[in-house]
Amino acid sequence: MMQQVIKITTHKRNELVDITQEVNKIVSEANIETGIVNVYVQGATAGIMIQENWDESVQRDVISLLSKLIPAGVWEHDAQDDNGDSHLKAGIVGPGECIPVINGKMGLSTWQNIFLCEFDGPRNTRNIVVTVMG
Amino acid sequence: MMQQVIKITTHKRNELVDITQEVNKIVSEANIETGIVNVYVQGATAGIMIQENWDESVQRDVISLLSKLIPAGVWEHDAQDDNGDSHLKAGIVGPGECIPVINGKMGLSTWQNIFLCEFDGPRNTRNIVVTVMG
Amino acid sequence: MMQQVIKITTHKRNELVDITQEVNKIVSEANIETGIVNVYVQGATAGIMIQENWDESVQRDVISLLSKLIPAGVWEHDAQDDNGDSHLKAGIVGPGECIPVINGKMGLSTWQNIFLCEFDGPRNTRNIVVTVMG
Repeated sequence: MMQQVIKITTHKRNELVDITQEVNKIVSEANIETGIVNVYVQGATAGIMIQENWDESVQRDVISLLSKLIPAGVWEHDAQDDNGDSHLKAGIVGPGECIPVINGKMGLSTWQNIFLCEFDGPRNTRNIVVTVMG
Repeated sequence: MMQQVIKITTHKRNELVDITQEVNKIVSEANIETGIVNVYVQGATAGIMIQENWDESVQRDVISLLSKLIPAGVWEHDAQDDNGDSHLKAGIVGPGECIPVINGKMGLSTWQNIFLCEFDGPRNTRNIVVTVMG
Repeated sequence: MMQQVIKITTHKRNELVDITQEVNKIVSEANIETGIVNVYVQGATAGIMIQENWDESVQRDVISLLSKLIPAGVWEHDAQDDNGDSHLKAGIVGPGECIPVINGKMGLSTWQNIFLCEFDGPRNTRNIVVTVMG
């Protein structure tokens, strides 16, 4: 069992940030051969998505898709914080993923990377809690 | 390790019910310092979503969004049960979330609460299985 | 703790394949009374969804819905692989689910089954990693 927090600074309102290397490092240090790792972002306007990282095209497509499905400025919550779309995107994507640990490494396939999805940035600090269990 | 079932009554066809306090109670009783808690709803027409709970606006926006993206009455399954939209909403939201346990408490941020999403209510009983592992 | 890989062949570009029996078998062999099972598909163009299995209507409705929300052929990534829609569907559905283990069996309700969602088939082999923890 190991638990650590990754801190990420974001720079745009909507942005995908690859955190695979940071999670890899924690899984390595955990010295657990077989199990799962849970990656969970705190804050109700961000999410975690497993996605391809061949280039940045899929990341931009994710933002385009979500902005089309969940447009800004048309929600009841906009009367409070003007970020109803951010909450809805975060709710649909979800705050976390569990990934198997196989032979001491994450069981991601070649093109699967872990992305922090920022939907209400920029933010100085997004806290991502990584828990490795075996 | 602790596992308990939360039983919730729902009152509308589409409704978000905050179950954070019920899950908090189980995590407290589990006496686990570090780990994860899995929250899972049984039934193929409900889901679990982490979402803001400042007021009820985001909860209503979630229902509006899903009803816009997944309209009622236009699905092949409606010929059986007339609830094709309920199944599709449940599939997209998903039946469960894993949340880290940090220092004996759930690692939710200030505005993150856990919601049962009812998509085919009202129902006398929705069973939510809570499993705390450390 | 038990970890095994299920190998599935898919036959269509978009297809839902019921893998509940295969996961049940692994959970039985794990001899774990209480805990969770994580079901995770490798590959950035597939997902795991819990969904009804009364007949195949909901499975076809899932494919119709996702094709309507995420049309093919209109994404930046299509310039690379012509499968931008496959990645986006996989990202929204997500690669995994955690299901509680109760009295040695999966805590699925009557109509909840586990489906591999193929979004870029046919494929000779989709690897699904099943990890049972108690």
